[in-house]
Amino acid sequence: MEDLEGGVDYLADERKKAQFDVNAMKILWAGNQHRFQIADRMARLVASDPEFKKDDRVRLERKELFKNTLRKANHAWKRIIELKLTEEEASQLRFFVDEPAYTDLHWGMFVPAIKGQGTEEQQRKWLPLAYRMQIIGCYAQTELGHGSNVQGLETTATFDPETDEFVIHSPTLTSSKWWPGGLGKISTHAVVYARLMTDGKEHGVHGFIVQLRSLEDHLPLPGITVGDIGMKFGNGAYNTMDNGVLRFDKVRIPRDQMLMRVLQVTREGDVVKSDVPRQLIYGTMVYVRQTIVYDASRALSKAVCIATRYSAVRRQFGSENGRETQVIDYKTQQSRLFPLLATAYAFRIVGDWLKWLYNDVTERLQANDFSTLPEAHACTAGLKSLTTSVTADAIEECRKLCGGHGYLCSSGLPELFAVYVPACTYEGDNVVLLLQVARILMKTVSQLGSGKLPVGTMEYMGRAEHLLQSQCSAQKAEDWLNPDVVLEAFEARSVRMSVACAKNLSQYSNPEEGFLELSADLVGASVAHCQLIVVSKFIEKLKQDITGEGVKEQLQALCGIYALSILGKHLGDFLSTGCIKPKQASLANDLLRSLFSKVRPNAIALVDAFNYTDHFLGSVLGRYDGNVYPKLYEEAWKDPFNESAVPEGFHEYVRPILKRQVRSSRL
Amino acid sequence: MEDLEGGVDYLADERKKAQFDVNAMKILWAGNQHRFQIADRMARLVASDPEFKKDDRVRLERKELFKNTLRKANHAWKRIIELKLTEEEASQLRFFVDEPAYTDLHWGMFVPAIKGQGTEEQQRKWLPLAYRMQIIGCYAQTELGHGSNVQGLETTATFDPETDEFVIHSPTLTSSKWWPGGLGKISTHAVVYARLMTDGKEHGVHGFIVQLRSLEDHLPLPGITVGDIGMKFGNGAYNTMDNGVLRFDKVRIPRDQMLMRVLQVTREGDVVKSDVPRQLIYGTMVYVRQTIVYDASRALSKAVCIATRYSAVRRQFGSENGRETQVIDYKTQQSRLFPLLATAYAFRIVGDWLKWLYNDVTERLQANDFSTLPEAHACTAGLKSLTTSVTADAIEECRKLCGGHGYLCSSGLPELFAVYVPACTYEGDNVVLLLQVARILMKTVSQLGSGKLPVGTMEYMGRAEHLLQSQCSAQKAEDWLNPDVVLEAFEARSVRMSVACAKNLSQYSNPEEGFLELSADLVGASVAHCQLIVVSKFIEKLKQDITGEGVKEQLQALCGIYALSILGKHLGDFLSTGCIKPKQASLANDLLRSLFSKVRPNAIALVDAFNYTDHFLGSVLGRYDGNVYPKLYEEAWKDPFNESAVPEGFHEYVRPILKRQVRSSRL
Repeated sequence: MEDLEGGVDYLADERKKAQFDVNAMKILWAGNQHRFQIADRMARLVASDPEFKKDDRVRLERKELFKNTLRKANHAWKRIIELKLTEEEASQLRFFVDEPAYTDLHWGMFVPAIKGQGTEEQQRKWLPLAYRMQIIGCYAQTELGHGSNVQGLETTATFDPETDEFVIHSPTLTSSKWWPGGLGKISTHAVVYARLMTDGKEHGVHGFIVQLRSLEDHLPLPGITVGDIGMKFGNGAYNTMDNGVLRFDKVRIPRDQMLMRVLQVTREGDVVKSDVPRQLIYGTMVYVRQTIVYDASRALSKAVCIATRYSAVRRQFGSENGRETQVIDYKTQQSRLFPLLATAYAFRIVGDWLKWLYNDVTERLQANDFSTLPEAHACTAGLKSLTTSVTADAIEECRKLCGGHGYLCSSGLPELFAVYVPACTYEGDNVVLLLQVARILMKTVSQLGSGKLPVGTMEYMGRAEHLLQSQCSAQKAEDWLNPDVVLEAFEARSVRMSVACAKNLSQYSNPEEGFLELSADLVGASVAHCQLIVVSKFIEKLKQDITGEGVKEQLQALCGIYALSILGKHLGDFLSTGCIKPKQASLANDLLRSLFSKVRPNAIALVDAFNYTDHFLGSVLGRYDGNVYPKLYEEAWKDPFNESAVPEGFHEYVRPILKRQVRSSRL
Repeated sequence: MEDLEGGVDYLADERKKAQFDVNAMKILWAGNQHRFQIADRMARLVASDPEFKKDDRVRLERKELFKNTLRKANHAWKRIIELKLTEEEASQLRFFVDEPAYTDLHWGMFVPAIKGQGTEEQQRKWLPLAYRMQIIGCYAQTELGHGSNVQGLETTATFDPETDEFVIHSPTLTSSKWWPGGLGKISTHAVVYARLMTDGKEHGVHGFIVQLRSLEDHLPLPGITVGDIGMKFGNGAYNTMDNGVLRFDKVRIPRDQMLMRVLQVTREGDVVKSDVPRQLIYGTMVYVRQTIVYDASRALSKAVCIATRYSAVRRQFGSENGRETQVIDYKTQQSRLFPLLATAYAFRIVGDWLKWLYNDVTERLQANDFSTLPEAHACTAGLKSLTTSVTADAIEECRKLCGGHGYLCSSGLPELFAVYVPACTYEGDNVVLLLQVARILMKTVSQLGSGKLPVGTMEYMGRAEHLLQSQCSAQKAEDWLNPDVVLEAFEARSVRMSVACAKNLSQYSNPEEGFLELSADLVGASVAHCQLIVVSKFIEKLKQDITGEGVKEQLQALCGIYALSILGKHLGDFLSTGCIKPKQASLANDLLRSLFSKVRPNAIALVDAFNYTDHFLGSVLGRYDGNVYPKLYEEAWKDPFNESAVPEGFHEYVRPILKRQVRSSRL
């Protein structure tokens, strides 16, 4: 994406090796021409604006860091307005600014919560204020003592019929809201989740709009204790966000600030269910989680881009024409890096598909068709878990693939890791989500033969009888190029693992006890199912029209690498269920090596296709032009720690040692 | 280890569940009574001294952070002298101070380099200066362009016979020394590795003592450019260390500052090999790497201690007597946590054994017996790789096991991860090391049948004929409790993987090419061999006299968990080589679950046995008394960011947005 402006491109030779149309791949990666153009324009806009510089971020002390983020958020908002950006453009611009800020929660959680859970009247009142940012909101759900178990939240909202108000209260220390982003210092309002109490009875957890701070002096309102929860993992990273703690001492809000789309409390204190089905909430979860899956491909591709470019720059050992070998030419490097490159493409494809799924579910819900919702919900929950866990590990693997230099902040990878890992925990802990998927898998297995056919991503389970018997037909390495062979192996593995779990479960008289006892195996079955979804969506994509010379061939190779590297990593599953034979595993391994060789000359072009600017990558190792060493060297000298040769503290704490002002020891 | 001084122990009920003698286990963990007492005394000494407080470390800006470390290093040195500590005590004290500092390199690399590579005369001259810290040294090997490939280092040391000096020079940018700890700001001297050149000829890479900074004003000497390489991964963490960059512009040093124990340069410029065998260098590597293996068990046990205690405090979902279930009671939590607990014990046991191995090798070397050196070298290289890779991943897994709160710096886990991960790269990149092990494995396989019997940890290869044929005898889950069954499965897997690699290699006409092509499989064979070493040393330990009620039973359970969780994770290896059958794998999985239940009541006591102070753990989540939530809450308010309710930057960058000083948008 870079205009080198006369500079030397040290990776030019690598780029010449590409055997496919990189521009066509760029558009495929972006989704379509329209999305490509928006992303490209926003990326360049951010990269060329010095206000969005971020290379000093890892060095700033917290208060300075946070102030700096406020400055950028303000500047971004100004640009959004000046340039009259659309919602999609604004969202892309914020993405390329690449710095967690209170605005993420305002736009990503507060506004959607009101849209999803507010009545039309409530939306008319609050959305214009939020859209114009006359109020700034966050999403206060998680508490010090409760994360995954939302139904266990302790904050209470008690209706007082005398004053027509709710009293929001934190009855215990563990009921303190804890973690919400944007809460600690900035939000004026929050959607607060609390147990609804009327007339001494409890009615489950619901959302309430609560004003936290004065719109005049920004100080917390009476009864509200609010602050930041302190330093988090990494330099820069999520420390640009004011994740907060919040306690209520009997704070009163008007009744109409309960979000009442699904459940209403009347003036008299009666609790009335609206005719809007409660399942709509699952629709919102499908939405949020599909964005997380999409973001996984963004974070992973960023890490892979850095590691791939640096692997082509770095040379170590060996020798060809008097120069050492590029580390990207080592099979050990390829066998760790290329599966991650393939995974980035796989996650992008499944992320695009989830966008479609969300729209499909939404349309059905509007037509009161709830039939696909449980499956769509399980599928997004499972994919959220799979993609975020894999991405977190993959970023760290990319860092290790950069050797020692990956440990420097200037590589960009430490911060990328630290800022990404919360995705494994927020919006559903990854293990808890896999157990939810397992419940639906077990239900599906139990209904086989009942005539009720599984739908969507569970459809293959309808062919369980065949899949429990089928034999993999691979006879030679090339047979693993056949998508049908790959798909059937993954389907058979998944069905067999689920059926085995169901069989083991059936031996427990108490099913809940069995579920707990066998939960580790159930998690394994869920992972197998989710990996199958990704493989099958990748294969489906290959059956579509794909434009651009050589693009399809590259995707075929990447799809093979994705599937066969999983097969190798989870070989125990495939062998123990008898889906494939050891000889076939060995053939798959041979094919995998040959696919690495096929991808090798295209590796740099395949990461160029992500179309990331050097600003966005924020990595000396991942520079577009490959000019790594001189820039690493320059970066070091820019550090303020190098302003003086003799560091602070030397005269006080080191000189006395050197000058023997301490007496001799026993050493 | 804590004296609660009247405070409440919220984990008291957990401690009562223990079925073994915790004090006996503490001594076993420490190695023996003597080592336990030293560690215990030094840990308390550090924990009770306010100068060593470290809870503000993650918040300090780099210069402040570094100054703070200098202060602690100075204080530690004073205490070492005042208390007349022995070398062992001093080393333990520095360990419990738990902050990387220039002194680590001075004592851990500079002094040993002179001891190992200097002549007796050189040792007499330099060691007293170093022991009294009248000079401070570091170890300058790695360059910007060269890490693993030491023979590719570019720095030159050219002998000038006219002046009887060496000229140390950095001919290229990539020859800049890069990474050495203690170099950036503090060291007065360095052992510099450079290519020895005499009379236009090259004689390989050797070490040279070079003074870097004036002992008067601490400024760099003429011809020397030196500085810090900038921010590294994480808050606090390794940023307390001045990893440095160093360039030489024809710097002259006297001839006698080349370390000449192995190779000498005479006044005339002749290069003469001494009668000291060059293999001694491998002895040093065995030493350094065995300390790294030992340190892996330290870092891992710290993380496991935090995660285990917090898992007993945290409750989520479910219900027993009206309270939610402790997350440590979930099988998903146990199946992730307990294998790590078992691994901590396994690594400690193998670390202790490596100490013995190093002494054994040293004695043999002194008697000119080099027979065990290659095997000892391979074994420590492999174990360094295995234990550091596993530990790095395990720390992050422990962080995830603490849910969202593990992301807070006050959990201690982010910093522990960031400070630990370099161990995967320094002293030999972990993948490069595994390939070295693979070479020796292939050599051993090729010599089978030649009459030359493999020794030490490779001895089992001598039984290859049997192991290639043997059938696992497990018929029921309990059979996996039999150490012979476990050991044979691991031996068979390792032999079969190595033999398969050798067979595949033999199909290449160019063996080097084959080695490169199959390197990913070779790495797999090395891992299998190294895991076998750990399992076999654990089993050997169980055959020794073990004192203390119930201690042996706990270790047996942990040994089973360690071995069988590896078996489950690498099931593809065991099945594809036909070492075990799917049914036997399923039995092993059943036994594993029952071992989790056996360890569960002992879990807290098993981490108490590490005898770590709250100071050393540095974790609110891992507190001895389990009083987590109130302390998390307190910690948050202590953050300077909470000094004012309205943060810096609010008036400049947020208020104008709220007050609509920006005009309306298209949104």
